[in-house]
Amino acid sequence: MSKGISRPTLKRLPLYMHYLKRIQGEGVEFASSSLLASEFGFDPTQVRKDLAATGEVGIARRGFEIVALIKAIEELLGWNNISDAFLVGVGNLGSALLGYDFSSNGIHILAAFDTDERKIGSRINDKKVFSLNNIKDLAERMKVKVGIITVPAQHAQSVADLMLDAGFEAIWNFAAVPLKVPEDILVENVRLSTSLAILTNRLKEKYKK
Amino acid sequence: MSKGISRPTLKRLPLYMHYLKRIQGEGVEFASSSLLASEFGFDPTQVRKDLAATGEVGIARRGFEIVALIKAIEELLGWNNISDAFLVGVGNLGSALLGYDFSSNGIHILAAFDTDERKIGSRINDKKVFSLNNIKDLAERMKVKVGIITVPAQHAQSVADLMLDAGFEAIWNFAAVPLKVPEDILVENVRLSTSLAILTNRLKEKYKK
Repeated sequence: MSKGISRPTLKRLPLYMHYLKRIQGEGVEFASSSLLASEFGFDPTQVRKDLAATGEVGIARRGFEIVALIKAIEELLGWNNISDAFLVGVGNLGSALLGYDFSSNGIHILAAFDTDERKIGSRINDKKVFSLNNIKDLAERMKVKVGIITVPAQHAQSVADLMLDAGFEAIWNFAAVPLKVPEDILVENVRLSTSLAILTNRLKEKYKK
Repeated sequence: MSKGISRPTLKRLPLYMHYLKRIQGEGVEFASSSLLASEFGFDPTQVRKDLAATGEVGIARRGFEIVALIKAIEELLGWNNISDAFLVGVGNLGSALLGYDFSSNGIHILAAFDTDERKIGSRINDKKVFSLNNIKDLAERMKVKVGIITVPAQHAQSVADLMLDAGFEAIWNFAAVPLKVPEDILVENVRLSTSLAILTNRLKEKYKK
């Protein structure tokens, strides 16, 4: 059984795809790994390895056929097959995410959930907000397996527990707290404070000099 | 000259701090590295090394004094010293970020900028929206050196160029495109599509089995 693609490669593939789609829109048909390497300032050997993971093979002196390469990356990322998702926590960030179209990134947010009576029953960015009490029932009926958590940190674990009870298999977690879940449940964290920690530490070091 | 703290350590420190603040609120005064290690499922040796970076020294059998440890982490992250920031791009995500209080993470968003005439002059989450044409003038007058980019990918580089021209030294970039900036400019990227790439690839692999 294959170990799967490494995280660093998975992180670079969306960058390549975004760029490939852009130059494709400009009428370009072929792209070489050295073109991508110079565009992103990456090591050409690394780019070649990343692209090898897609199974596509370049043509000598022309490179990869862009249409085929985009398709291969989409398949590798699972972006050709959209999973329905529920979002819990309709605050600032949750509401913003409801306005995003993630369908080209493999996710479609079907509905949102909250515990705030004033929000329940409303529509935010055209997505209906339901009571969190109904999440299990709706997830089972609509066969939703992907959850997005945008609640404050102190409520994140209890929301994750509700999602696990409802049979969710993957969680995209925006709360600033690690979730305790069984090993076979996928969790991907987006932590704004972590990202800021790196920026502000480097800035402080810069000013010290 | 020190090489500075590693990115992985910088990523873990905000987690520790968040947890330490929580248990401090529950009246706990001391915390050991093994307590933190078990809370997060990290290797205790790694946690000890992370905490050593703060310069704090634990007391045998009691661990670290939480008040002092929180203070040391804040200093290390530059979170005791708030930098003013400007945000460019008042769409869904930009508006959401304007509603966040990042002051405990070392950043204070002073104002926002956009090119959309309907937004210019308005207030969003209590932050005034100015014309992007005025960013250099205002940055110089208000001595702002930190920029947040929440515009669509195709406009991110031109916004970054404006920020560089206005003397910005650090950019928190939410656009799905790498920015080309001189080496001494700090850039920290938050890429939602990258985070989703990992989740959806793993989910696809899971279903294949």
